[in-house]
Amino acid sequence: MKRKGIAAEREILHKFWQNGWACIRVAGSGSSCYPSPDLLAGNKIKKVAIECKVINDTKKYFPLEEVEQLKKFSEMFGAQPWVAVKFSNKEWYFLTLEDLEETKSQFVVSIKTAELRGLLFEEFIDLMK
Amino acid sequence: MKRKGIAAEREILHKFWQNGWACIRVAGSGSSCYPSPDLLAGNKIKKVAIECKVINDTKKYFPLEEVEQLKKFSEMFGAQPWVAVKFSNKEWYFLTLEDLEETKSQFVVSIKTAELRGLLFEEFIDLMK
Repeated sequence: MKRKGIAAEREILHKFWQNGWACIRVAGSGSSCYPSPDLLAGNKIKKVAIECKVINDTKKYFPLEEVEQLKKFSEMFGAQPWVAVKFSNKEWYFLTLEDLEETKSQFVVSIKTAELRGLLFEEFIDLMK
Repeated sequence: MKRKGIAAEREILHKFWQNGWACIRVAGSGSSCYPSPDLLAGNKIKKVAIECKVINDTKKYFPLEEVEQLKKFSEMFGAQPWVAVKFSNKEWYFLTLEDLEETKSQFVVSIKTAELRGLLFEEFIDLMK
């Protein structure tokens, strides 16, 4: 599962470089004692912090804590927080934190929400211009 | 040696967080197919890309390529490129690429240059304000 996660992160990493953005994978994200995203991408003007998820289900639940950490890191670093989700046989969809559905104890993204509110990478990178 | 390098990177990472900056270690820096620094730090306004070196000698040689890559990454990402060096029994010194001495085939930093031109972390972080 960890290897699958890294492969997924690399997929997005390549897309950024191909589009003239610099992008790095964060070492020990999720295990560090500080909040940290999976990916950090930037160009001369904009910076984005991204949490990537490959999902073998029709929904993905995000613990409140995980979303809070992404938000906190992004505020401190001076980046926009985004979530990238990939459901089986679907494209990567990029969502803002406002796009996630909030329940009492967690955030949720369904395939439907991703397709409805999410941006394809090309749309996402265009928006950033 | 790799473990020593990671420990050194973590030392600087902690300093940034203690000073209200967000900082991450870059996964696979040095082995990635894209240019990438060891550390990326940022606050709401500034971003810095840092190459860290622990040195068991009186001089440290940087291949031209390594410096070029740091410069290229920093330009693309929109960050300032810095080098942090730690000689035995000395503090961390932060140097800009202009502080490095250029020879035909590489860049050099001696203990003397580090002490003369380098900034201690506290001086470096003050400069960034």
